[in-house]
Amino acid sequence: MKRIYLDHAATTPIDPVVLEAMLPSLTGNYGNPSSIYAEGRAAKKSIEAARLQIANAINADLREIYFTASGSEADNWAIKGIAMKNQAKGKHIISTTIEHHAVLHTCQYLEKQGFEVTYLPVDEYGLISLDDLKKAIRKDTILVSIMFANNEIGTIEPIKAIGEIVKEKGIIFHTDAVQALGNIPVDVKDLNVDLLSLSAHKIYGPKGIGVLYIRKGVPIDNLIHGGAQERKKRAGTENTAEIVAFGKAAEFAIQHLEENAVHMKTLREVLIKGIMEKIPQVRLNGHPEIRLPGNANFCFDYIEGESILLSLDIIGVAGSSGSACTSGSLEPSHVLLAIGLPAGVAHGSLRLSIGKSTTLEEINYVVDNLAEIIERLRKMSPITAECPIDDAVFDKPDHH
Amino acid sequence: MKRIYLDHAATTPIDPVVLEAMLPSLTGNYGNPSSIYAEGRAAKKSIEAARLQIANAINADLREIYFTASGSEADNWAIKGIAMKNQAKGKHIISTTIEHHAVLHTCQYLEKQGFEVTYLPVDEYGLISLDDLKKAIRKDTILVSIMFANNEIGTIEPIKAIGEIVKEKGIIFHTDAVQALGNIPVDVKDLNVDLLSLSAHKIYGPKGIGVLYIRKGVPIDNLIHGGAQERKKRAGTENTAEIVAFGKAAEFAIQHLEENAVHMKTLREVLIKGIMEKIPQVRLNGHPEIRLPGNANFCFDYIEGESILLSLDIIGVAGSSGSACTSGSLEPSHVLLAIGLPAGVAHGSLRLSIGKSTTLEEINYVVDNLAEIIERLRKMSPITAECPIDDAVFDKPDHH
Repeated sequence: MKRIYLDHAATTPIDPVVLEAMLPSLTGNYGNPSSIYAEGRAAKKSIEAARLQIANAINADLREIYFTASGSEADNWAIKGIAMKNQAKGKHIISTTIEHHAVLHTCQYLEKQGFEVTYLPVDEYGLISLDDLKKAIRKDTILVSIMFANNEIGTIEPIKAIGEIVKEKGIIFHTDAVQALGNIPVDVKDLNVDLLSLSAHKIYGPKGIGVLYIRKGVPIDNLIHGGAQERKKRAGTENTAEIVAFGKAAEFAIQHLEENAVHMKTLREVLIKGIMEKIPQVRLNGHPEIRLPGNANFCFDYIEGESILLSLDIIGVAGSSGSACTSGSLEPSHVLLAIGLPAGVAHGSLRLSIGKSTTLEEINYVVDNLAEIIERLRKMSPITAECPIDDAVFDKPDHH
Repeated sequence: MKRIYLDHAATTPIDPVVLEAMLPSLTGNYGNPSSIYAEGRAAKKSIEAARLQIANAINADLREIYFTASGSEADNWAIKGIAMKNQAKGKHIISTTIEHHAVLHTCQYLEKQGFEVTYLPVDEYGLISLDDLKKAIRKDTILVSIMFANNEIGTIEPIKAIGEIVKEKGIIFHTDAVQALGNIPVDVKDLNVDLLSLSAHKIYGPKGIGVLYIRKGVPIDNLIHGGAQERKKRAGTENTAEIVAFGKAAEFAIQHLEENAVHMKTLREVLIKGIMEKIPQVRLNGHPEIRLPGNANFCFDYIEGESILLSLDIIGVAGSSGSACTSGSLEPSHVLLAIGLPAGVAHGSLRLSIGKSTTLEEINYVVDNLAEIIERLRKMSPITAECPIDDAVFDKPDHH
C-alpha cells in the first residue's frame, strides 16, 4: 500500500533536485571550507553560492545569512543573542502565547536569568492584536519575537504591520519564518524584520541545517563560540553538503512558490470542505483564510488525537496531533489552548499538512476514511456528550 | 595530478561505508523521528541504533549520548551548560592555554558574564602538569575542561590521571575528544570523565554532526531550548541521515582502530624522520611519543606557514598551518605560543596530518618536495638569520 504523507509541516522528503545538488559534497568536495588549499576553496565556493541562493530567496544581502543546524538553533541564537548583548538597555522581551517551543522555552529560560517576557494573547483564530503589541511595548523592551506563520494551526501573523510598529520604537524584531518559507512570500526588506529563522527540512531539504538572517548592524552575541566560521558569528566546521542542499531547496521553492501554493490551497479547501461536511462535531482551527496554503487543523469532540493518528497510520496515512516536537507529551497543545479551546477538546486535534506532491486522490481517500474512523472511535470512546473529557467543553460553545 | 591530502585533523572525506549507511535516510526514511506514525518510527529506530553504536564506541550507556551539530556545539553546551546550572555552587572554571577555540572562546565569553577561568600552562611538549591542576582547584571550582589530544600539535593529555584528581574533589570534568576518537582508545568509564565532545567529520563521517556524552546524573542546562528531542536536552528536529552516518563511522573507526593507528604512526615516523634529516633549522612541535598517530607539526625558521601551504597546494599537497578554524587570521597559533615558541617562529608552522588511506609513496613525495620548497622560500624570504622575524627567536635557543 502506498503511504499518504500529510505531515509536511513536521518535515518533508528531500526533493531529488536537492539530493542531486548535495551529493557531490558527500562523495567528494570534502575540504574544510576554512582551509586555503584547493579542497578548502572548492568547499568554500559551494557554501557561498548557497548563501547567495538563500539571500535571494528572502531578499537579503549575502552577508546577512548565517547558517545554523536548525530553525531551533536560529531561534535560540536570535533571542538569547539579542538578550545577552542588549541587556544593559533593558531586559524586557515581547513574544506570543502561540510560538514554537524553540521560542517559548528560550524565553522561559531567559525569565529564569532575570529577563521579563510579555506573551501576547491571540484571538480565536490565532491572530495577535496590534493594539496589544503597542500597549506591551515598554522603555526597556529590547526584542519582539513573533512567528510568521503558526506551525500547528497555520495562521499567518501581520508581520509587516508588526515590523512597522516595532521599527518605529527602535526595538529589534525577530520572526520565526520556518513554516513560511516556500509557502508564502518572505521578503526581509519589505517586512522590516531584523532577524528571521529558517529551516531546510520544511522545504524539501535535509534535516540538520537552518539559517538565521541577521540584518546588518544588529548587535547580537554568539550562541556557539569557537572558530572563525560564518564571519566569526557561528563556530563549527561548516556542513557543506547540507548548506548546498538548503541553497538549492530555497531556490527551487521560490521558483515554484506560486504554483505550489495554488495546488496546496486547492487541495486544502477540498479537505476542509469534505471533513466539515462529512463529520459531525468538528471544528476547524486557525483562520479560515489567513493561513498557510497546506495547513488544515481540526478538533473532533469526544476522542483523542492520538487514537485518530494511529487509526490513520494503519490505513496508510501520516498526520499529526499538535507539533511533532511535543509528541510523547500528554499535555494538550499550547496553541489550541491559546485560541481558547478547553483542554479536553484540544486533545482531540488533528493536523493534516499538504505538500507539493499531494494528490486529489489522496485527499479524497483521507476524507472518506476519516469519517469512518471518527465514527468508530466515538462509539468506542468512554467520553461522550453525557460524560465529557472536560466540563469546559460546554463553557465555550462558540468554539464548536 | 592526484591530490595528496594531509589535513585529516581538519576534516576527512566520508568513507564509502558511511555514505552507504546514510544514503537511505536521504533518499527515503524522511519521517520526523518525533512522530508516532510509521515514517516517524522508522527514523527514530535508525537514530537509536546509531546512538548505541556511539555509546559502544566510548563505553557509555545509550542514554548518555546526545547528538549535536558539531564538536563546537558540544563544547559550548558542556561548558556553558555546566556553568549556568551550577553557578550557585561557584563560578570558577579550570581549562588550559592550548584548548580548541570552541573551549577557549566559550570560557572567555563566560568570563564576561562574571565567571573566573584559570588557564593551566603547558610544558614545551604541550603537556599540562598535574601539580598545576591540583594547585588551581578551589572551593568554588565547578568545572575542569581539558582536551584529550591537541588538534594542532597532537599531544595527548593525561586524561585518566586528571579524571582521578577531579573526581576526588567532586568537580565536573569535561574533555574535548574530537581529535582522539578513532585515533586512540576513548573509554569514558575508565577515564572518569563526566562530559566528552565528539565530531563525525574527523572520523570519515559527514560535517554537521557531533555528540556530547553526559554522564548520568550530571546537572547541566540546555544550550538549545525548544522541542522535546534528545530526551528534552537538545531541541531541533533530529538530523537522521547524519546521525546514522556518525553511528556507522564510529563503529567502523573502532573496528579498525588498531590497524589504522599502526599504519598512521608508521608513516608519521617516516615523515618526521625525513623532514628532520633533509631540512635544516626545523623543529618538531608536540611530544615526540605521546601524540596522535597521524599528527606531525613542524616549525621552519625564517618563513611563513602560509607560503609553505600555498607552495604545497601547487604541487598537489593539502596541509595546514595552525588549525583550519583560525585560517584567515594573522595571529600566530595560541598553541605554539603556549609551548613557548616566539611569535615569529610560530608563524612558520606546518601541520601534516595523516589519514588511514595515506600511502608511503605520498609521504615520500612530500618529504622530497618539501625540502625544495623550504629552500626556495628561504632564499626568497626577506627574513633571515641576520634579520629575524622576532628577536625573541634567539632568546629561547632550546626550542630549535
